[in-house]
Amino acid sequence: MNFCSNCGHPVSLQVPPGDTLPRHVCPECGSIHYQNPKIIVGALAEWERRVLMCRRAIEPRYGLWTLPAGFMECGEDSLQGALRETLEEAGARIEILGLYSVINITYVDQIYLIYRARLLDLDFAAGEESLEVALVDEADIPWTALAFRTVDLTLRAYFRDRRAGRFELFEATLDTRHAAPRQLVVPPAGA
Amino acid sequence: MNFCSNCGHPVSLQVPPGDTLPRHVCPECGSIHYQNPKIIVGALAEWERRVLMCRRAIEPRYGLWTLPAGFMECGEDSLQGALRETLEEAGARIEILGLYSVINITYVDQIYLIYRARLLDLDFAAGEESLEVALVDEADIPWTALAFRTVDLTLRAYFRDRRAGRFELFEATLDTRHAAPRQLVVPPAGA
Repeated sequence: MNFCSNCGHPVSLQVPPGDTLPRHVCPECGSIHYQNPKIIVGALAEWERRVLMCRRAIEPRYGLWTLPAGFMECGEDSLQGALRETLEEAGARIEILGLYSVINITYVDQIYLIYRARLLDLDFAAGEESLEVALVDEADIPWTALAFRTVDLTLRAYFRDRRAGRFELFEATLDTRHAAPRQLVVPPAGA
Repeated sequence: MNFCSNCGHPVSLQVPPGDTLPRHVCPECGSIHYQNPKIIVGALAEWERRVLMCRRAIEPRYGLWTLPAGFMECGEDSLQGALRETLEEAGARIEILGLYSVINITYVDQIYLIYRARLLDLDFAAGEESLEVALVDEADIPWTALAFRTVDLTLRAYFRDRRAGRFELFEATLDTRHAAPRQLVVPPAGA
């Protein structure tokens, strides 16, 4: 950020009074421009034990497989965002079952919220951002051709939970591009 | 937004190629300025069945009671944000137990992520944004002097779950300032 989006004056980076972090501040109109992490919403939608996946027609990760997901928009809630992204990328209508995966990616300031969902019918088709859309069995997941680590982590948790017969919220943090995900470890009460 | 934060030129509102929503676009340098919902992270921290609460020393809702919470910052994950806000507002150290409450507020483009937590010691004190900090019994919750509906919803779900003996992720959406919260209703499989 170089210029104030309110008045057009050059901004400077400084810690505002009462704050603890440097912000882009406008010396002309006094506006403080906060930057915050962005939310990515998506869906892991199932049909008869197969999972709805899209092959990306856009960069980054052109040609690789993903779950339908994208930036949450203003004016919608996170569930509506997951429905919208699934409709846009996979042409598919789903019913949300609940929040399933919460993955922080601190090095790009994003948080993924992936919902478990049921596909409502088989009338789906690749949207503009997808090369193809498919229902994929666990045995056929293209593990070496997945677009994002968030997709890999979410799918692994999902199949593990499905075998165990119960779904539990999956939470993880990715702090660097290569380090293993960090997960919350809660010691037993009284420990 | 009136001016491009990259080059300082006046922006115009238009739907970029391949997009579906109007964005602030710079006709000079081509920058597209997306605006997205913001994340608020906080904690519901317990000590011997009492809940850590803060009375606000800032607007909005000066003088009313809240759970420690605030905007998630770039460079941290949502759990670290909840720890930081609890330290800043209540001077308290906590241990996160897990994500508990996810509340969308679509009319202000915010999503609340409140974590259940354990207070680690009794050495807490009001930070600059709090008038006072207290450990509050369920019977003493100031229901008519709560700062935000998100706090009310989260506390009600929490005490209900505690009586039931198990905590389940609480999800709700607030679409207007006054309408009842909207909650996901999932029909049984096969319905």
